[in-house]
Amino acid sequence: MQVEKGQDTNRVILVTNDDGYKSSGMEALIEMVKPLGRVVVVAPEEGNSGMSHAITIKVPLRMKHRNRDDNVELYTVNGTPVDCVKLAMNELFAKIPPDLMVSGINHGSNASISVVYSGTIAAAIEGCLYGIPSVGFSILDYGEYPDFRASILYGREILKNVMEKGISPECCLNVNIPVLPPQEIKGVKVARQNRGSWREEFEKRTDPRGVNYYWLTGYFHNDEPEATDTDEYFLTKGYITVVPVNVDFTDYREMKKLQGWENDLYNAVKNELSQAK
Amino acid sequence: MQVEKGQDTNRVILVTNDDGYKSSGMEALIEMVKPLGRVVVVAPEEGNSGMSHAITIKVPLRMKHRNRDDNVELYTVNGTPVDCVKLAMNELFAKIPPDLMVSGINHGSNASISVVYSGTIAAAIEGCLYGIPSVGFSILDYGEYPDFRASILYGREILKNVMEKGISPECCLNVNIPVLPPQEIKGVKVARQNRGSWREEFEKRTDPRGVNYYWLTGYFHNDEPEATDTDEYFLTKGYITVVPVNVDFTDYREMKKLQGWENDLYNAVKNELSQAK
Repeated sequence: MQVEKGQDTNRVILVTNDDGYKSSGMEALIEMVKPLGRVVVVAPEEGNSGMSHAITIKVPLRMKHRNRDDNVELYTVNGTPVDCVKLAMNELFAKIPPDLMVSGINHGSNASISVVYSGTIAAAIEGCLYGIPSVGFSILDYGEYPDFRASILYGREILKNVMEKGISPECCLNVNIPVLPPQEIKGVKVARQNRGSWREEFEKRTDPRGVNYYWLTGYFHNDEPEATDTDEYFLTKGYITVVPVNVDFTDYREMKKLQGWENDLYNAVKNELSQAK
Repeated sequence: MQVEKGQDTNRVILVTNDDGYKSSGMEALIEMVKPLGRVVVVAPEEGNSGMSHAITIKVPLRMKHRNRDDNVELYTVNGTPVDCVKLAMNELFAKIPPDLMVSGINHGSNASISVVYSGTIAAAIEGCLYGIPSVGFSILDYGEYPDFRASILYGREILKNVMEKGISPECCLNVNIPVLPPQEIKGVKVARQNRGSWREEFEKRTDPRGVNYYWLTGYFHNDEPEATDTDEYFLTKGYITVVPVNVDFTDYREMKKLQGWENDLYNAVKNELSQAK
């Protein structure tokens, strides 16, 4: 293996994304992590936006090794971001897991409620489920060639902290980066997921045969515009945001209230069954 | 509209699933909710297992009205469970939302970590994001025609409680049902999501051209077999489990720790930028 100047070859970093291996966001992510260790990319052949935590069940998966002109190992998969993490972990890292899993840099925000639809963050959640410190990165620019300089500089510092100080095995990080040159970034803020929703989500059209069809579209609506502690808020103020995403989705506060229903439910069905006799 | 005996026609219930509109689990769910209100089904044309919160972006969606011989309104969609909820909410319920959203009954468990891959629960999360009390149901049987009697009886009681007593707008319910006749169900337990993981996830084969391919497979591994307060535990004991699933994925405990990194990150990048000058 070819070693680059300053590269820490004792560490292995697994890289994936949801825009496909050819995206400029993938190259920016590789540039971010190269000094931190040996880089192994396992990424989708094609764009997979909006695939969330989908896995491929109906068609077989294929993993293809591809040559690069640097010392990055590249494999592509005809599947989703989560498929990529699973194949990497089972086929490449079955014995020794990587030290870090990173996903992105996604072209477009994954702040607020976008986290539930995001293939980028689903890959990070999957990495976390394998016990690997995992971080998903997104830039607030849907263009093909955003300015990734701030993402690379700040992202690398975030990852250094993750590797040196550790994060809880229960969570991964959702990092969003505003479209600003590095000098204009105000700093990094750890924030909570903003409440939000999508509105007017479909454009209805009629095909040449007179049949209706729908394109998914719509706009994001901030459900708590007054909040000053959320990812949406800090992003509009010029900060990079870090939201720790818990892989335990249990709503513990609601549990206590619902436990009060347990006996009623059992008795209601018991009554019904005895009446049916 | 034809009204059935005992049906409460003041309420409207939106029904979807991830196994497709033809599954027996869909019919069982319709039977469960019919006495509770007017039933509108918007379900995928085909099976969508493992689609999680995926949305369809690359191809246009079509929604087709289909006739049934009862008073249930049925529409099918060439998309995912989340697409179905979105289309229903935008095209059928844009003015007056339904009173309840139910998803399932899924053929196979969505307990423990399966919640992150599940299209059934993703649909319930999507319903919750629209502010509708939403519940996903799954039976622990992958067969085509499981015994749904306990699911129907207990599910209906759970839904009555949801409508009468309400649940937090921050969460939906993930209900799993063991494969037992109603008389043998031990009761209902509100539980937390069990920690678990998947192992040996791929079967590797070689095609006639000598190229490798992979089928997703594997088995569930319980990461906390000693726990006595999780969905996995209560299911093995013969209870129906209810896990409240929070749509805010923020790990609040981890936030405090990570906030200690904020200044270090900013200063590290500032130093780097000033050295580069």
